[in-house]
Amino acid sequence: MFPKQRDPTMGLFTKDIKTMNDLFVHQLQDIYYAERQLVKALPDMAEKATDPELKKGFLTHLEETKTHVQRLEKVFKMHGLAVTAVDCPAIDGIIEEADEVAGEVAGKAVLDAALINAAQAAEHYEIVRYGSLIAWARQLGRNDLASILQQTLDEEKTTDKKLTSLAEGKVNLRAAS
Amino acid sequence: MFPKQRDPTMGLFTKDIKTMNDLFVHQLQDIYYAERQLVKALPDMAEKATDPELKKGFLTHLEETKTHVQRLEKVFKMHGLAVTAVDCPAIDGIIEEADEVAGEVAGKAVLDAALINAAQAAEHYEIVRYGSLIAWARQLGRNDLASILQQTLDEEKTTDKKLTSLAEGKVNLRAAS
Repeated sequence: MFPKQRDPTMGLFTKDIKTMNDLFVHQLQDIYYAERQLVKALPDMAEKATDPELKKGFLTHLEETKTHVQRLEKVFKMHGLAVTAVDCPAIDGIIEEADEVAGEVAGKAVLDAALINAAQAAEHYEIVRYGSLIAWARQLGRNDLASILQQTLDEEKTTDKKLTSLAEGKVNLRAAS
Repeated sequence: MFPKQRDPTMGLFTKDIKTMNDLFVHQLQDIYYAERQLVKALPDMAEKATDPELKKGFLTHLEETKTHVQRLEKVFKMHGLAVTAVDCPAIDGIIEEADEVAGEVAGKAVLDAALINAAQAAEHYEIVRYGSLIAWARQLGRNDLASILQQTLDEEKTTDKKLTSLAEGKVNLRAAS
């Protein structure tokens, strides 16, 4: 029901985020949903990719993403919270757009370029959210949580750079030829 | 109707993106929609912001975003195309999530932190899309289009950095206190 929880005594939506800790927890639940949606989406992207290096890259990142889910579960527990997710319309929109565009592409090399672009949108979404979570965790005096989240952020940034290299070094060239 | 155009002779969805140029044009139409949605969303974010520097930052970025729309219109024309938009579920999801979270926040300082996080999600979405557009324009031999798009990318990156500074230098501190 969170964050659209209705207060039965008021008949109005309640405002559940009162402190930075509330905001941190909400964002944790949001990125937990997003990571799990990506675990579902990445096998499909790997299947659609034609460049072997890109296909392998998506499968490697799928394994990393499963680790990111586990790290988030660890952070929930260390913070004394039940592991929960809230809907994340942003990642749903990013994945929906990826599916739509991929479904419209006829050429294999062009599809690889479109898949990289789609994957980078997801990576950057995560880079922003983990960046905020880390800053907020530090502000809350929880450097222990920040350092776990930092491991994931570093992996997302590395994946993003690998995708750029693959696009600019090979895929875009083939797609334009 | 693009990209969900139905081929009347086939009764099936057509695959309209056949070349890198088609992909470039599709992405141009997508980011044109996104920039116009942000022109609509930014005044609301400026109104919600309580920190004067953040409020002013949103209003400055609103003016920049209007320029980004005009630059895209110029790129369409230089490329011999009519100015058109396609729905962009990603930016719609990012804005929807921003509205949802902002509506749940009770404290003013916490709301500023949430607004910065929301704005950075939009910035990073644009950074990815402009990055791809620039790489594809260059691959297509259109450095003239790439250099116009690069001006916008540089401004998006500068805005993102300013938001990080504002969050880490002031807003997060107030929100956690």
